[in-house]
Order: sequence, then structure tokens, then C-alpha cells
Amino acid sequence: MIRIGIIGGAGYTAGELCRLLLNHPEAEIVFVNSESNAGNLLTDVHEGLYGETDLRFTDKLPFEDVDVVFFCFGHGKSTQFLSEHYIPADIRIIDLAQDFRLAAEDNDYVYGLPELNRNLICGAQHIANPGCFATCIQLGLLPLAEAGLLQGDVSVNAITGSTGAGVKPSATTHFSWRTGNMSIYKPFAHQHVPEIKQSLRQLQPNFTGEIDFIPYRGDFPRGIFATEVLTCDAPIEEIETLFTDFYSEAPFTHYVTRAIDMKQVINTNKCLIHAEKHGNKLLITACIDNLLKGASGQALQNMNLMFGLEETTGLRLKPIAF
Amino acid sequence: MIRIGIIGGAGYTAGELCRLLLNHPEAEIVFVNSESNAGNLLTDVHEGLYGETDLRFTDKLPFEDVDVVFFCFGHGKSTQFLSEHYIPADIRIIDLAQDFRLAAEDNDYVYGLPELNRNLICGAQHIANPGCFATCIQLGLLPLAEAGLLQGDVSVNAITGSTGAGVKPSATTHFSWRTGNMSIYKPFAHQHVPEIKQSLRQLQPNFTGEIDFIPYRGDFPRGIFATEVLTCDAPIEEIETLFTDFYSEAPFTHYVTRAIDMKQVINTNKCLIHAEKHGNKLLITACIDNLLKGASGQALQNMNLMFGLEETTGLRLKPIAF
Amino acid sequence: MIRIGIIGGAGYTAGELCRLLLNHPEAEIVFVNSESNAGNLLTDVHEGLYGETDLRFTDKLPFEDVDVVFFCFGHGKSTQFLSEHYIPADIRIIDLAQDFRLAAEDNDYVYGLPELNRNLICGAQHIANPGCFATCIQLGLLPLAEAGLLQGDVSVNAITGSTGAGVKPSATTHFSWRTGNMSIYKPFAHQHVPEIKQSLRQLQPNFTGEIDFIPYRGDFPRGIFATEVLTCDAPIEEIETLFTDFYSEAPFTHYVTRAIDMKQVINTNKCLIHAEKHGNKLLITACIDNLLKGASGQALQNMNLMFGLEETTGLRLKPIAF
Amino acid sequence: MIRIGIIGGAGYTAGELCRLLLNHPEAEIVFVNSESNAGNLLTDVHEGLYGETDLRFTDKLPFEDVDVVFFCFGHGKSTQFLSEHYIPADIRIIDLAQDFRLAAEDNDYVYGLPELNRNLICGAQHIANPGCFATCIQLGLLPLAEAGLLQGDVSVNAITGSTGAGVKPSATTHFSWRTGNMSIYKPFAHQHVPEIKQSLRQLQPNFTGEIDFIPYRGDFPRGIFATEVLTCDAPIEEIETLFTDFYSEAPFTHYVTRAIDMKQVINTNKCLIHAEKHGNKLLITACIDNLLKGASGQALQNMNLMFGLEETTGLRLKPIAF
Repeated sequence: MIRIGIIGGAGYTAGELCRLLLNHPEAEIVFVNSESNAGNLLTDVHEGLYGETDLRFTDKLPFEDVDVVFFCFGHGKSTQFLSEHYIPADIRIIDLAQDFRLAAEDNDYVYGLPELNRNLICGAQHIANPGCFATCIQLGLLPLAEAGLLQGDVSVNAITGSTGAGVKPSATTHFSWRTGNMSIYKPFAHQHVPEIKQSLRQLQPNFTGEIDFIPYRGDFPRGIFATEVLTCDAPIEEIETLFTDFYSEAPFTHYVTRAIDMKQVINTNKCLIHAEKHGNKLLITACIDNLLKGASGQALQNMNLMFGLEETTGLRLKPIAF
Repeated sequence: MIRIGIIGGAGYTAGELCRLLLNHPEAEIVFVNSESNAGNLLTDVHEGLYGETDLRFTDKLPFEDVDVVFFCFGHGKSTQFLSEHYIPADIRIIDLAQDFRLAAEDNDYVYGLPELNRNLICGAQHIANPGCFATCIQLGLLPLAEAGLLQGDVSVNAITGSTGAGVKPSATTHFSWRTGNMSIYKPFAHQHVPEIKQSLRQLQPNFTGEIDFIPYRGDFPRGIFATEVLTCDAPIEEIETLFTDFYSEAPFTHYVTRAIDMKQVINTNKCLIHAEKHGNKLLITACIDNLLKGASGQALQNMNLMFGLEETTGLRLKPIAF
Repeated sequence: MIRIGIIGGAGYTAGELCRLLLNHPEAEIVFVNSESNAGNLLTDVHEGLYGETDLRFTDKLPFEDVDVVFFCFGHGKSTQFLSEHYIPADIRIIDLAQDFRLAAEDNDYVYGLPELNRNLICGAQHIANPGCFATCIQLGLLPLAEAGLLQGDVSVNAITGSTGAGVKPSATTHFSWRTGNMSIYKPFAHQHVPEIKQSLRQLQPNFTGEIDFIPYRGDFPRGIFATEVLTCDAPIEEIETLFTDFYSEAPFTHYVTRAIDMKQVINTNKCLIHAEKHGNKLLITACIDNLLKGASGQALQNMNLMFGLEETTGLRLKPIAF
Repeated sequence: MIRIGIIGGAGYTAGELCRLLLNHPEAEIVFVNSESNAGNLLTDVHEGLYGETDLRFTDKLPFEDVDVVFFCFGHGKSTQFLSEHYIPADIRIIDLAQDFRLAAEDNDYVYGLPELNRNLICGAQHIANPGCFATCIQLGLLPLAEAGLLQGDVSVNAITGSTGAGVKPSATTHFSWRTGNMSIYKPFAHQHVPEIKQSLRQLQPNFTGEIDFIPYRGDFPRGIFATEVLTCDAPIEEIETLFTDFYSEAPFTHYVTRAIDMKQVINTNKCLIHAEKHGNKLLITACIDNLLKGASGQALQNMNLMFGLEETTGLRLKPIAF
């Protein structure tokens, strides 16, 4: 059994990780650290766990009892935590924040997108788990990058569920405001664009275009749905072959020949992708569950790979569908 | 023109009042007081007002310039405000909080339910505007009380929109939690029960039953929908006549012979009521918009009556319908 | 491997059954019968299945290849189907419609509520799977019935998701009408009341009260949330013990000491129950996922019991939570 | 009083027109034609009208009693209706379908976008009311076209409420499917693109770019929210001045310097527009209520202009806000 510690345990991604791990046949949760909730039951904080666990939050960090820790902090806090705490070198770390996603000289974290870096992940000690938007948008472009087909700027519109904004209540997650509403934020300036470009250039080093990304606030709790448009001369048949081949070994990422809708992936670790040509414009649609393939599910997929387990262990999830 | 001051101007009921008053042909907003927003445009805070006003919030209280003030405080704060500020005796007050709803020796506020107290309201200097749940539930029972037909306990289930919980974000108004969810709060203990009982006893002094009220948190922003069940021997035809007669002069409250649904009243000042007999059980359904007939709309209806205007002035609103 | 046939395969409950069975370690789907969809891929009709199956609908009925068939018809059609088709006697049947739920002289179907009839189900050849509302409402009352504590009428309000109304589009499942709306239907006359009474009388034969049930149309896709009120003199501690003891062996049904909310059970086969006393009134809240514990999940739970499997096989589902 | 006939009276746009006209001080509804509903009360079909009208649908067409008729047909049926019925030449027609929106030799219908064609509308006998998407998208581009600033292709993403799909239930308006879901339809091929291009070329004849329009199905009932991106060298200050000047006389269309959200216009006849520059990309956001400025509200605005009334008569609506 892989012994697991979770730090930053009161947030949405930690809760989702717990919901996954409680059904994982090869893993057990040893501790869930949350200073503000120390002593409380997990079931007091995380929805959906009655009858599944009697575990309580702790303010302790018994690293000696675990094989891997998941950082479920807000962005920027992983670095701070590491500067304040000693973690034994043999403990693996999977960081769900963005602190280590971009390559740097002293950064030994592997960017944890299995479709891109499966072999590196299998041998990694430290993983930087990709961002939710970044996962969805990249998966819709990587096969094109591998074929060197990216040219010009890519126009991306993607809409996210409210869980992407975290558990802390705010004006833009207030139900009264958000329900039946539509708005955008950080257009052309979202923090996930650099990691997307990094991955694309890993496969197509000469790609110098922009990712013109407009993020929308969706009036739904889970999911990301993205449309991506770029100029492309290749015929649709070639595109479809590229995608099908590129993801032929990926257990969760599938190219679909029909139009897709977002709820087809909700509560799963899947990414669905569909492509159409309109004149010389290529339109890609892609969707994921932001808390699963976009966060905790992919983190667990990475853990499975790091520990030599079947990649899908504990991740064959019943889709919500409705 | 009736000159109006609004105090507690940043909340939902104040915003709704502004949206109404800007189209009211006989009223003008003189000031909207909000300490935390002083200097900001109303359009910075209240949705839907672009193009309708250049007014700014103030931290001043120029009572000498107004004929009536609306208190849009949280409950309990009206009393506190009055203890700390002098309001000239000739200024009328309409209090949307619950501070003065229950009769007391030194309480000169008239309970502002026009269907019950129209004549008193017309001559009132001070109005205690009814609670949202209280309005909906009472209107479904008053004709029975007038006929002396209330007996035993009344079983009431009513569901409210998230705007009923106010503008301040909280765990139970977080979109992620509330959307697609259902829950109850304060069962058998909601603060509106005493004012409901007071009104029923005003018409049927011998009513001693309980109002067994279970409030639900609805996953919609506006509206209250209530079902009320009591034992009743009268035939449905008699019930229908009672309701139709009782509300014959009420411009916003209507008895409907078909089943009703909540969106029929959203964005209106209406209350719709329907009744059915099942054996000796009488089932009443009633619905209102909690921010209009349940708060700011009724407050304006009271103002119209106090100032001798046509009761519906500024309140002939297009229903949202969808 | 248990070999499975599904008849009436294009509806919501059939889809949910497929989503469950594709991850069930001891079962395999042999055929999914749907005349109107014969030849089409399951993925063309049922959301969420891309990447999980290449199965196609069939208009054949190869009973010789299966161990059990699930009837996913609309109500009334199971009887008709059986009158028109021969099913070998050794094939087990699990009927999700209501045709065989009420005991009758020539009815050999066991009422498939494991919390009530576990032993009978284990030996059953034919199962009548309970109704969704009936499951939720009964589970909130059975421990009281066993203790002989039911007295007088029970006031029940319960709200259901739109999937309860089936896949066929209609006026009351139109998104434009239903979203943000609230309404009731069939008050005091819902077709599930007789099976509720039957179960209650199985445990408390002298119960003669009414189930005054008001069903609400919820503006959410999945879930049932019920409140049940009855007069009861027993103290809350005794009630809590009754519920905890009654469900001590039930893997999916849990008594919870805190207030519950509906999303805690969505996408699970659980039922959560909470009780409060207010004066001499006992308030029970209970919730389930209408497509799982209220339909396909419970059907699979019954299959597990019939075939001697661990009751929870294939039903340890990640809650949606948000 | 302007006497009004409505044909195709059972659909969403007809219902919205009725809800508006019942409060219009200078107009009265003479007949609402609907063959399938002849004899039924308007309140039986159209939400929100209890207490406002006793009018019934008719299968008659008393053209002699009206000054103007509104065609609320599905697209294509206006032409058919006109070929089958004689309408006296002095009766004005406002057609909400798309039959006459594109200029043609024998087409005397004026394209009814007041911000573009106010003077023509004032003198028109026949109006082709613009499409909902077309209205929102155009209003975000017209000031640029007038200044000759359109160059290259325009990337447009716009999301619409379910009422845009009409009253007839279908798979994609089924609540179970649509709620919490996201999908696109007719990408690069929506029927409103030609009328958008026609308007843009009216102001900038040399515009030859494409409108790369991706329509989204929103999980809300009302509203359209659009983002539009194009290459533009002009500084943001110039853009803001262009928009402010272009719409200086428009009572319902406003340029806003802050980011906008869709609910700010719901239940109003407004269009809000906001612009940002990011590098040499210009991002426009625009939003309307699809049933009001996108259909029935704009139709009434056109009627006001045709009959010499104040443009805003009957259209000063309380925003829903929440």
C-alpha cells in the first residue's frame, strides 16, 4: 500500500483527492493536514464522505509514515512551505500548485502531464501537476505541435466551473451573482499560458505564436470546455489521424469524431477532443473535469505512474452524465 | 415628487429599491447612504443600472431633503440606527428589517402588509415591512383566518432563493455548494413565524395552532414557493370563493384555479395562490419574488399607499417568465 | 462473470446501468436492447461512455447468453413485454418499473429494498426494484415502523431531479421553464405511496395513517431530498439509536447526526438520514441519488445480493460533491 | 392607441411581446393569433400574465382592427404566411423571423437595428427585426466599421440562453442534459453571419474579412454574452471614444469602462459593451437579453420609432439583476 499524506487538506482539490483515494485499492491516506481544521472529521468539511471514513484532520506532519505527499495549497504557497519545513529526500512530492511548473535551472519537478511526459513521470521524485485550463488547452494542441502544424496565433476560449475558484467564498462565486450569469476574467493574461507555451515548444520548438486565451466564468460547478481556433492547411482526415495516433496509448484522453459536450467527462479523469475544419481554420473542442483531469485525478494518475501501478488504478470513475 | 433616502444602501434590498425607484414616475432618489461605498457609483455595486443613473453612494444623511427613508439594514440594526441618529418627526420611515414587526406597547410601526392593513398603512408614519417568507406564507392563510377556518397545526414547507441570504458571501451561498443542491435550515424555528401568527390572530383570535415551518435553501436566485397543509372541512368551492373575495381589491395578489409555478411571479410584485382539497386536507400553494413582494416591491407599495398614490405606481413590472 | 442483458436500453436508467456495469469487476454486458437505436453505438446515446465501450444497441433478445435481464421500461411496459416474450425460467429478472412492486397472489417478485428484504433478495429469482421517491421516503421511516412508533399521518415533502421524469423532452423538463423554477405535481396522489405503505405495514402492521406526500419538481438533474414530519413522543436519543441500529449492516444507508444536504449523496448509492425533534414533532430528512439508490444503483445492489457477491461490488462510487 | 395584432402567438417571442405590451401606455393588443391555442387564455400558455389580462388566443386574423402586426413565426414561415394571406397595404409589419433581413431587389423591409438605421425605421412600413446573436455581435463592431477599423477576420465566441432555441422541447433543451453542460453548434456556419456582414459593410464597404463565429449553448434561460477579437492598431482611448460617440443617442446601448457581466442586461432592452486592448488585439465584450434587445424588445423599439413615439416607451424595464 502506498502511504499518503495530504497538505492543505481543507480545499477543493484535497477533498477530491480524499474522495478518490478512499476507493483506491493500492493506497491509503495516512494524514490530512489542515491547521484550521485540526481535530475535525473529514466528513465535517468534505462533502460526500459519510460512511467512507472516520479520519480526522491533523496539524501534524508525520512524514516518516508516508511514501508521497500531495501539496494542495493555493498557488505560491508550496515554495513557502518547502522553505519552512524539511521533507525527507525519499518522499515523493506531487504539487498541485503552479510553483514548479515552469522549467528552471534548479527545478527538478517533472511537469506531470502523462500524455506528454509519461516516461519522465515514471521516474520522477517530484511532480508539478499541470493547471486545469492548461491541461485542457494543451491536450487539444499537442498532436498538432508534434506534427509541427502550429502556425500563427491560437484563439482560445475556455469556460470553467466555479470549483476552479476555490472554496473561499467571494463576490464572483456568490450563487446569487453567478447563477445564470456569464463573464470573463484575465483575458490574454491568464497564469496558465506560460505552461501551455512551454509544452507546445517542447514538441514544436519553432512555435512562436500567441495563445490568445479568454477565460470565462461558467455557471456550473465542475468542468472546463475549450474551443481553440488556428489556421491550418492540413485536411481534417490528417488531423484526425494525428490525434488518434498521439493518444493511442492514453487511457483517459480520446479523440471523438462527433461533436462533444462537457458533461460527458464530468466526474471522470477523461479528456475528450473533437476537431473540425472550416475553410483553412481548424477548430478544436476539448473538455475535462477541472477537479479530476484538471487537478486531483491527474495528480493520482501521476502517482500511479511514479509507483509503477496501472495508470488507471482508482480512476475508473462512473461519469455523472446528468 | 416624493423625495427618498435609502440607508444601508449596498445590500440586495437597497439595490432592488434603486432599480424600482429609477423608473417610478412620482419619486426620486435623493441619497443612498453606505459608509463602505461612499463616493462610489451606484453602478459599481448594483447590477443592472448602467445607463440609468449617475448617482453615487454617500456617507451623509441629509434628512432635511427627503420625505421618506427606507431602512435596508440587516435585522436588529434599525433599532441601533435610530438610537444613534435623530430623524425629524415628519419624515416617514419604511423599515425592511424585522425590528418593529411585532406589536409592542411603544411600537408605532404599522405592519406593512397591504392585503391585511391597507387602511392603517395609508395613514401610517412608520411602516414595518413584512418578512419575505412571512409575506408568502400569510397570504396563503389570511382568507382562511378571516373565515375562522384555521384549526390544528399548519404544515408549511417553503423554499427561498439565495438572494434571501443577503449579499455577503458565505458557505451556503457559495455557488459550488448551492447549485444542484437542496438543504433546510432553522426548521420549526424560523424568525418569521411570530409575525405570521400575529397576522393570523389579528383575523382569527382563537387560532392557537402551530406553524410547523421548514425553510429550504433553493438553488435559484429569486423567489419563494410555499406549500401549506391543514385540516379543513370546507369544500374547495368555498375555499376558492374565500380567496377570490378576500383578494378582490388586491392589485398584486391573485387566486389562480390552475396549478402555479414560481417563475410566474419572478420580477413582479405579485403573489399567486392556488388551493386543492385532498380528503379533508387543504393544500395551499403560494409564491412571490422574495426581493419584490417579499421586500423592496412591497416597501414601495407601502410608500405608494402612505403618499396617496395609485398602489401600483412604478410596480407594473414585466415578469421574467424564463 | 455474470452475463447481463438490458431491455429498454435507451432511457436514463439503462444508461446509468451501463455506466455502472462497465466498471463492475464481476459482470459483463452481453446485450442492450433498443429497437429504435438498433445498430447505433451506446456512446451515441448514453453520455459519458467514450473510451469505455464499443458496444452497439441491438434489436435482438439473446436470452440464452445471459444470466440476468434488467427491465428498464417505462411503467406498465414490463407486464406487456412479459406477455409478448418468452424468457427462460432460469434467467433472473430485475424490473425497474413499478409493475410488480405491490404484493399480489400471483406475483413472485421480491420487493428489492435490501434494507428491508435482504434475505429474500438473496434467494430471489425476480426482483421488483423500488421507486425512487419510495426508496428515499421509506428509508426515513422504516426504523420507526419496526419500533411501532408510526402514529397519525406523516407529512412528506420531497423534491426530485429532472432525470426522474425520463429522457423524453416535455414542457416540464424544458430547460427554459424548469431552471430557477419550482412547482409541485400529483400532490397526495403520487404512484409511489402504495409501495411505501406496504413496506411500513410489513414492519408495523397496525399503521393506518396517511402518507401526505407532496412531490416537487427540482431545478437540478439528480437527487431526491425529503422531509418527513410526524408526531412522536420518543426522545431524539432513542430515535437516533433506532436508526443507527436498523442500518448498522447497511453499507449504503447511514444515519448522520449533523444536518445533511443532497449533494452529499449525488453519484453514490448512498442514502443519508438525519432526525430532529421539535416539541412532539419528529422531523426526518433523507436524501438519495434518484438514478442510483433510487434506480440503477439499487438494481445492481440487488443483483449483487442475488448472485452472492459482496453487496457493494461495483458500487463504491466517487461522490460528485460539487 | 396603437392597435396590435400578433401572429404566431404561442412562442417565446410572442409571449415576451405580450408581457411588454400589456404595460405599454400607447399600445393595446387587439388579437393574438394561434391556431393550436385558439380559445385558450393567454395565461394558459404564457408565464407571468395572471392578473394582467383576460385575453384569449384566436384563430382569426382581423387585420382591419389593427395598425401593426408582429410576425412571431419560426424562420421561413413569414414568407409562406404572406403568400397565403392578404394584409392590407396600410398595416405595418414587424417580422421577427429572418426572412427579410438580407437586402434584395424586391425586399422593402428595413433592417430594424435602431443604432444603425434609426431614420429609415422611422419611415418604414415593413421591418425585418434583427437576429439575437446578430444584434449583440454587430453592436460590438459597428463603431469600428464606421471608423473603417475592421481588418482581417474577427474571432467571435458568443453564448446564448435556452430560450433562443424556442418553446418546442428537444434533446438540447432538455433540462437534464443542458444544466451544468456546455457545447457548441453550427460553428462557422450560423445563419446570422450574413446579416452581420451586411451591416458592417453598410458602414465599411471595404470590409472583406470573415466573422469566425462559434455559438455556445448556455445553461441559463436568457441572455447572450459575446467576445469578439480582432487585430487593431488604434489605442484603447480612441476605441472608447468611438463607441461612446457612436452610441451617444442610443437610449439602450451603452459603452462601459469596467468589465461587464451578462446579468446586468437581463430583463432589459439594453446592450452593454466593453473594450480592452491586449497588444495589437482588440477585445470587445457585449451582452444583451436575447428575448428583449435580441427579439421582442427591439421589435417594440422599432414600433415606437415607426409610430413616432418616444423610443423607450414601454421599455424602461427593471433589470432582474439576480
